[in-house]
Parts: sequence; structure tokens; C-alpha cells
Amino acid sequence: MKTYTIGVDYGTNSVRSIVVECSNGHEIAASVYDYPTGEQGIILDKNDHNLARQNPADYIQGLETSITEALKEASKLDGFSNDQVIGLGVDTTGSTPLPIDQNNRPLAISPLWKDNLSAHAWLWKDHTSAEEAQRITAIAQAHRPQYLAKCGGVYSSEWFWSKLWHCLVVAPDVFEAAYSWIEIADFIPALLAGITDPRDVKRGVCAAGHKAMYCDEWDGLPDKEFLARLDPKLADLRDRLYQKAYSADTEAGRLSVEWAGKFGLNSGIPITVGAFDAHYGAIGAGVQEGTLVKIIGTSTCDCMVVPSTKKIEDIPGVCGIVNGSILPDFYGIEAGQSAVGDIFKWFIEIVCQGNETLHQTLTKEASELKPGQSGLLALDWNNGNRSVLIDPKLSGLLLGQTLYTTQADIYRALIEATAFGARAIIDRVQEFGVPVKRIVCCGGIAEKNPLLMQIYADVTGCKMQVSASAQTCALGSAIVASVLAGESGGGHPNILTAQQKMTGVKTLEFTPNSANKAIYDRLYRLYRTLHDGFGGIQPAVDLSNVMKDLMILKEGTKN
Amino acid sequence: MKTYTIGVDYGTNSVRSIVVECSNGHEIAASVYDYPTGEQGIILDKNDHNLARQNPADYIQGLETSITEALKEASKLDGFSNDQVIGLGVDTTGSTPLPIDQNNRPLAISPLWKDNLSAHAWLWKDHTSAEEAQRITAIAQAHRPQYLAKCGGVYSSEWFWSKLWHCLVVAPDVFEAAYSWIEIADFIPALLAGITDPRDVKRGVCAAGHKAMYCDEWDGLPDKEFLARLDPKLADLRDRLYQKAYSADTEAGRLSVEWAGKFGLNSGIPITVGAFDAHYGAIGAGVQEGTLVKIIGTSTCDCMVVPSTKKIEDIPGVCGIVNGSILPDFYGIEAGQSAVGDIFKWFIEIVCQGNETLHQTLTKEASELKPGQSGLLALDWNNGNRSVLIDPKLSGLLLGQTLYTTQADIYRALIEATAFGARAIIDRVQEFGVPVKRIVCCGGIAEKNPLLMQIYADVTGCKMQVSASAQTCALGSAIVASVLAGESGGGHPNILTAQQKMTGVKTLEFTPNSANKAIYDRLYRLYRTLHDGFGGIQPAVDLSNVMKDLMILKEGTKN
Repeated sequence: MKTYTIGVDYGTNSVRSIVVECSNGHEIAASVYDYPTGEQGIILDKNDHNLARQNPADYIQGLETSITEALKEASKLDGFSNDQVIGLGVDTTGSTPLPIDQNNRPLAISPLWKDNLSAHAWLWKDHTSAEEAQRITAIAQAHRPQYLAKCGGVYSSEWFWSKLWHCLVVAPDVFEAAYSWIEIADFIPALLAGITDPRDVKRGVCAAGHKAMYCDEWDGLPDKEFLARLDPKLADLRDRLYQKAYSADTEAGRLSVEWAGKFGLNSGIPITVGAFDAHYGAIGAGVQEGTLVKIIGTSTCDCMVVPSTKKIEDIPGVCGIVNGSILPDFYGIEAGQSAVGDIFKWFIEIVCQGNETLHQTLTKEASELKPGQSGLLALDWNNGNRSVLIDPKLSGLLLGQTLYTTQADIYRALIEATAFGARAIIDRVQEFGVPVKRIVCCGGIAEKNPLLMQIYADVTGCKMQVSASAQTCALGSAIVASVLAGESGGGHPNILTAQQKMTGVKTLEFTPNSANKAIYDRLYRLYRTLHDGFGGIQPAVDLSNVMKDLMILKEGTKN
Repeated sequence: MKTYTIGVDYGTNSVRSIVVECSNGHEIAASVYDYPTGEQGIILDKNDHNLARQNPADYIQGLETSITEALKEASKLDGFSNDQVIGLGVDTTGSTPLPIDQNNRPLAISPLWKDNLSAHAWLWKDHTSAEEAQRITAIAQAHRPQYLAKCGGVYSSEWFWSKLWHCLVVAPDVFEAAYSWIEIADFIPALLAGITDPRDVKRGVCAAGHKAMYCDEWDGLPDKEFLARLDPKLADLRDRLYQKAYSADTEAGRLSVEWAGKFGLNSGIPITVGAFDAHYGAIGAGVQEGTLVKIIGTSTCDCMVVPSTKKIEDIPGVCGIVNGSILPDFYGIEAGQSAVGDIFKWFIEIVCQGNETLHQTLTKEASELKPGQSGLLALDWNNGNRSVLIDPKLSGLLLGQTLYTTQADIYRALIEATAFGARAIIDRVQEFGVPVKRIVCCGGIAEKNPLLMQIYADVTGCKMQVSASAQTCALGSAIVASVLAGESGGGHPNILTAQQKMTGVKTLEFTPNSANKAIYDRLYRLYRTLHDGFGGIQPAVDLSNVMKDLMILKEGTKN
């Protein structure tokens, strides 16, 4: 008998549920629910563009609707019945914490708090907590440097403690009213499992380790003394958060009778602990030691794993090294670029005032250019730098333009800049002993932009493959659910076996061209000069050759 | 009785003749003749975008047509007759040399050579001689450093000897067939004066000193030993060029009976020695000690004068310091920016694919931005750098862009970049003791772009005035002609008196805003960091604060 699991993927604007066949990973049905609140699901504040909140009611309604609709679609297929669904997996954005009451209910769904933005979910890209983040970094540098070492050296305004502390500052009533706080990644599985006491919630180590400075080495979350240096109320909160966080081989619970009834599924099937989309996405893309999974969209998330039996150094400039955050018994390493697709979109839509047609035209024209031919070099920091430098106050740069520089020249230079940014991350992790032997890409850009993929292959010198699934995050969640069901329950004995059965790459792959690689090596050296200089790694750089070297490379393409 | 002089201004695409009233400088008539050969008067080579030649026949026909038409227009006015014209002045582009035969006729007008591009006039912006320019610089550095010191330290591919040498290399037959070479600035006055022996031509010191390394200190043109190091044939040519060059108080000759007959003018009226458009333009804009005249167009030319009784040091990075090149008995100092209007045109037309309407829209939007608000900083080197650094191999740069940076942000940053470039020149000459007390601007941009003018005032801290005449170059030629005619001949006793009568500035002037100046001082320091680093003046620069300082300035504009 065929078996299936459901993967539920909470994105920034919508939630998607898919039904996946355990034997081969095929997605047999899917449904997407767009969050109705705010602008494309995000509550904004026109007076503060740093603010980005979400309505937890959207999450709950989206859970019910998307799974119900996906099952309805699946039921149209011969041989499918709800009885064959053996587990559910959940991945979400993050760090997206929300305040909850003593019964594990979001504060924001109570009439008392529903109009207070601070009582809603603080979406990953909410940047209102910049000041708190800086202070956490400073206090940790002084008193707990080990906390920072695990998250690249800088604590971000996007992360858990920054957000909670900012809430305490701007909305002390909300903070006071909250019994505890929970990541959406932990909230959804607990909801499905009918867990009503926050202390019973199995929290995922992915959010805990990468965003909340949780580590088994120092007994979990940051200690009370440290938290009290931030604010004594944060220290008080520690007891009402969690003592332990879990990796993907742990059940968050089992499907409650109530939710099983809504869906027409068997109650008691296992539910995964929740993890971030990129991390379960890495599983869905077939991550293993030596594989870099790149999820390329508006920004990128780069995931790698190293067996936890190996000694691994702290790597300055990556967003976290957390035992079990991707695969159980492996360190999960996360890095990323703060803007990729967003940079192309900015150039096309704002600078060129164009649309999808211009995207296509410039892609075609840029494809006809050779490496070096534009004479341009750019930095990919229009939205700051998230890895290697970890500095949101960096900005973009374009260099080498003449009076003849075209839109296509610039477009290609921007793609190349993001490729150089990708290489900087690869170089950094390899310097610290993490091998990168192949790269598997997911996300819309990876599927639709062969020019970008070839440039990435040429710049990194590494073969670029594309994940077979277009929904690797939801697929990864479904894979983990199949492992929790176990071989005897119709699933798989372990994640590696499940990946072998359920994941794959497309036939079309992108192999480095050695002549192009040689030119990009020279351009990358120039990129690093700018990167290290403007990024503050090198206190004094020699720029005198930069423009001339670009001209020499450009002249060289005329032969 | 009213008296008049004619100013003839040879531009890049056309020649303009104007009839000017000596008592007040009013332009009473004008006519423009567009050169018919090539693209907008320029002969191009689709295989070599460095090549730019002109047909000397266009110059001759243009001389006849434009003066004839201007006089025809003047004759419609009451009280004007050709008898009242008391002199002719000529200014031209340059260095624009052409090969001539023993009778002072352009080689290119003979049937034998008319199809050979090397036999035509080598327009100022012909860059085919880059290699020869580099070799001249190297040879002069080794053997005659004093030659370079007078022209800023680098000999340009746009200049006289580079072009002649390149002709010798690529078209030895043309070089062999030429008896001598002449700048168009010297050719036109000699033509009007009926001079048929090249040795009798009075050459202007402007072209000689700024472009051909002529200086009285070393007995005129470069010596034969030096020229022989380039090529013995250039040394041989020296005797067939000229021994002495003259400033604007010298007649090139008197109007020949033949040309007087064509125009219906009196023969024997004085003709000025020819000078470059910018230099006679400086006179037409009222240049005197302490005044910087900026001719702002696609690029800029900046002219200043210092009494030759004063000791003046060589100034590294200016395009020349030549005794008498602008005003007699003053050192003429020339500097310039290789692209100004051209950068805005590139951004609007190529990057934004817009037109004049977009120019206007962005000007309006950019006017609403405060200094620092864009968060951007640019370098104005899309066409290289002509002054301070003198390096054609530099290129443009834009820095500070985010995902929200608009077209207007960039447009304003580009204007600011050209203002910073202008300030770098002012700072340089002032460091070497040349005072800049006021700035008079001419050219289309100065007249039409109040936003740019205000930014220039705020960046330089100097009041910006606009020349009353829209045709300062032709006016300057007419002024010099009125001085040659002399007070007794209905003209003026000297140039200063003539300037007082015949030049002026518009009522609208631009005064620095001190708050803006303070912000631009900070931006200018960042500009200099990039300028000195990428320009190679500083071997090691600290860039770590650049992007952050821009963000701080941007944040500051929100208050």
C-alpha cells in the first residue's frame, strides 16, 4: 500500500501544504493559502518601514484550509485515501516569535490584544529591534563571547532576543500580558498536537540554536545573569521558555483528535518538530556532508552539514553552527546573502522602470556578454551583508562604468556580484574545514535563470545542480515526517534513506567553464579588495589598480 | 558711428559666426553652419571608435557661409553696414591638427588624398594615438621632465605630437606628402589673411603651449634631440613648423582682398591669432585674476589667469600653464573634467532609456532631495579623469545604493559627483597659490540647470555666476578683434577695457547655503578618499567608514 506524508511550509506571504508519496517523493497534491491580513500577509507601519508583523489567526486558518484543500485534491486520485497519510511535517520562516498566554494561545487572537501590533507575530524581516541587537552584541562581547561565536560574531535585529527586548521597551503591557513567547516553527506543531501548556511544547533546535543563542554546551538558553544584564524581566522569562530543544528525529507530538477530525486524518500520526524553511529545504534538496544547498530567491539561504563526531571550529561570519539544526547528529551550518533576486528586481523595476519583459530582454543581452566584457564590478550589498561580514549598514556599489555602459552590462554585473558573494561564503566555510563538493540550488531563480546558474558555476568553479522538486521546503518537512512514522509505519528508517528515495536533481546541470573561471578568478580578487576594504576587514587597501585591471579584462574580451 | 567685429567659433559639429557691437558686446546677428561630412560633422570608423576626423573642406565652406549669412542678417538692421566691421576673431577646437602642403593648403582637399582619413583634420577627441602618448610621456619623463611639468605631468593622446607620430606610424605616405602640419586654430586666420607660405603663419601660443609643449623657456617647440627620440622624421619636421607662437594681442594678418570680396567687407581689417574656444570663451566671460571661468557642457573646460609678473609653480594635474595663452601678459591655466553633461546624458538615455522629459522629471525630483539624503556617492570618471589625476583609464563609480534607491537619487548623486570633481580642481590650483574668488559659468548646462548650479555653489562654497552671453567663445573672439582694431580704429585700447564694455553676468546667481556646504564638506571628504584611492594618489586607503558615514548622513536628513 502506498503511504503519504504532508509537508506544511509557512512562507512570508502564504502557507503551502503538499501531499507527498513516501516511496518516491512525488508531490501528488498541493494547496496554497494567502494570508489575508495586511499587505500580502504582512502588517506594515507606514511611519516605520522596519516594522513587519503577521496575524497568528492567519496561520491557524491557513493550516486548516491548506491541508484540507490539499487532501481534497489528493482524494481525486485513484488509490489515495486519507488513511494512507502517516505523518505531518512543518517548516516556517524565522525567527518569527509571538507572545502566548498560559494556554499556548497567541495573545493576538484575544479581543483584548488583537489591535496591538506588538502582540502579533514578529516576522523574520522585522527590523525594529536594531538598537537592542547592537546592545546584545556589545553585552555578549563583554560577558559571553562564546554566545556570539556560534552565530558568526554579531547578534541580529531579526532574532529572538532582540525582538522580545524591543517589545519590552515599546510595549511593556504586551510583554507583561504574555505568559511566554514561541516561534511559529514551534507553535504550529504544538497546535496540531493539541498541546495547551507552553512548558510541554517540544521546541526545535533550529530556531533555538540559530536565533536564540541556545546551546547544549552552556545548558540551553543564555543564562539568567546574562539576560538580566539586558533586562531582569528577560531573565524572569527564561523559566517560562524551555530547557531543551530538539532535532528533526524528535516528534513534536501526535495529531490531536480535534485536528484529525477537521482533516479526516487518523489521529495519533506523528508531527515533526518545526524547523526553518531553509533547513528542511536542505533536507528536501538532499543535503549531506560536502553538499551546499542554496535556496535562491529574493535573498539566499545557504545550508551545509558536518558530522557532529567531527571537531568543528567556530566560523566567523556565518549565521550559526548548531548541532542537529538540519540533520540529527550533524552540525547544521547556515549562511546567506541578504539580497539576490531583490537586487535584480530593484535594478529592473526601480532603476530601469521595467517589468518582466525587460528582465527577459536583459537576460538575453547579458547572456551574449563574455566574462569581463562589461568592464564592471559590483558589490551585492544593497540590503547589507548577512554572511562573512554580517553588517546591515553596508550598501551597494557599482564600478567601471563608462559613457557606453548598457543596462545589460549592469544587469550582468549585478548577477556576477551575487555570484562573488556566494563564493565568499564558500571560501569562508572551506577555510574552516567544511568541504563544498557540489551545490544544489532550489528556489525560483535556480529554476528559471540558466544565465545566473552558469555564472555561479563559472565563478565558484563548482558544478551547480537544481533540486528536482520545486517545493523543497515542504518536501523536506514531508521527508522528516516519513522518518518519524518509521519503516514499520510505512515510512523510512532514517533521513538518509528517505532522501535517497524522495529527493533528486534535474538532468540539466551547470558545469564550470575553465576559461571563464580564470577570468572570474581575476575579477573575484578585485571583488575581494573592495569587499575587504569597504567591509572593514582590511584597514588599508590599495585601489590603484582596480579600474585599470577591469579595463585590461575588458580589452582582453575583444580578441 | 557704431562699430562691429565678427567672432567665428569652430565647434565640434558646426561653425558659428556672430556679429558683435563693440560698444556693448551685443550680438546683433549670427549664423551656424553644420559640417556636412560624416556623422554630425565627424568622420568615424566603425571598426575603431577612437577615430574622429574632420574634412577641412567643411571648415573652408563653413567660414564663407556662416560669415556671409551672419552679415546678411545684420544688414537687415537699421544703421548697420559692412563698412562698420573692423575686425575678425577666430576660435576653434583643439588640438585639431591637419597636414598641409607647401602652399598652406590642406592635403585633404587635393584629389590625391581626399579619401585618406589620415590626411584629414585629426579632431581633438580622436584617441587613436594612445600608445604614442604613453611613449611621449615616458620619453619626456626620462629626458625632458620640464616639458611634462607644464602640461600637468602626462602627455595626452588628444594632443599634437601624439597625433603626428601616430600618422607617421599608420600612414607614412601621408606624413611624407605633408610639407607641414597646422592646428585649425592657426589655419583659419591664415586662410582669411591670404597667407600661402606655412612659414609665414602666425601660430597662437594657446595651441602651441597647451598641446605641443611649446615654451619660450626652452626656445619654442621641443628640441630636435628629443623629437628624434620619438622619430627622426618628427625632428626633421620641426624646422617646417614654427619658431615662435603668439598671444592674443598679435594680429595673425589682415583680411585678404579675395576674402574681403566674398564677404563684402573692407580688406585689411585685422584678424586675431586663433585660440581654443574655451580660451577666447574665458575672455568673453570676463576672466581676470581670481576668476574661474567654467565652460560646462558635455565636458568642462576651466580657465584661470595669473599675471606673468608673478612667480607661478608648475601645478601637477592641470592641463597646462602657458604664458599668454588666454590673456597677454598673464599665464593661462587650463583644467577640465572629461565628462559632465555626458554623464547625465548616459544615465538618462542609456541606463534609464529616457529622453528630455525624464531629464526634467528627475531634475524636479532631485531638487526635492536634501544633500546626503540619497545616501549615494559617485565618482565622475565615466570618461576618465582629465585634471588632477589625468588618467583616461579611470572609470565611473556609484556607491551607497539600497533596494530603495531611485532614479532621482542616482541623478542627483551624479550631479554632485561632477561638483566634487570641480572642487578637486579648485582645491588643487588654490594649493598652488592660484586664487579662486568667483566662478563664472558658460555653456548650455549653466544656463538651463539651476539645480546643478546651486549644488556647485554649495559644494565649492563659491558664488556661481552665469555669463550674460550664450556665445562666450565667439564673443571672446570678437572682443580680441576689437582690441586689435584699436581705440582709434573704433575698437578698444586693451582687453580689460573691452571686457568691461562687452561682457557681463546674468542677474540670477547662486550663493552657497552654509548648512548644505557643511554636509557637502563631509561628503567631499569621502569623495576624496575614493578619488585618491582609485586614482592612485594614496597607495592605501581606509574604506571601512565610507558606507556607514553615508548612512549616518542619510539618517541625519530625516530630522
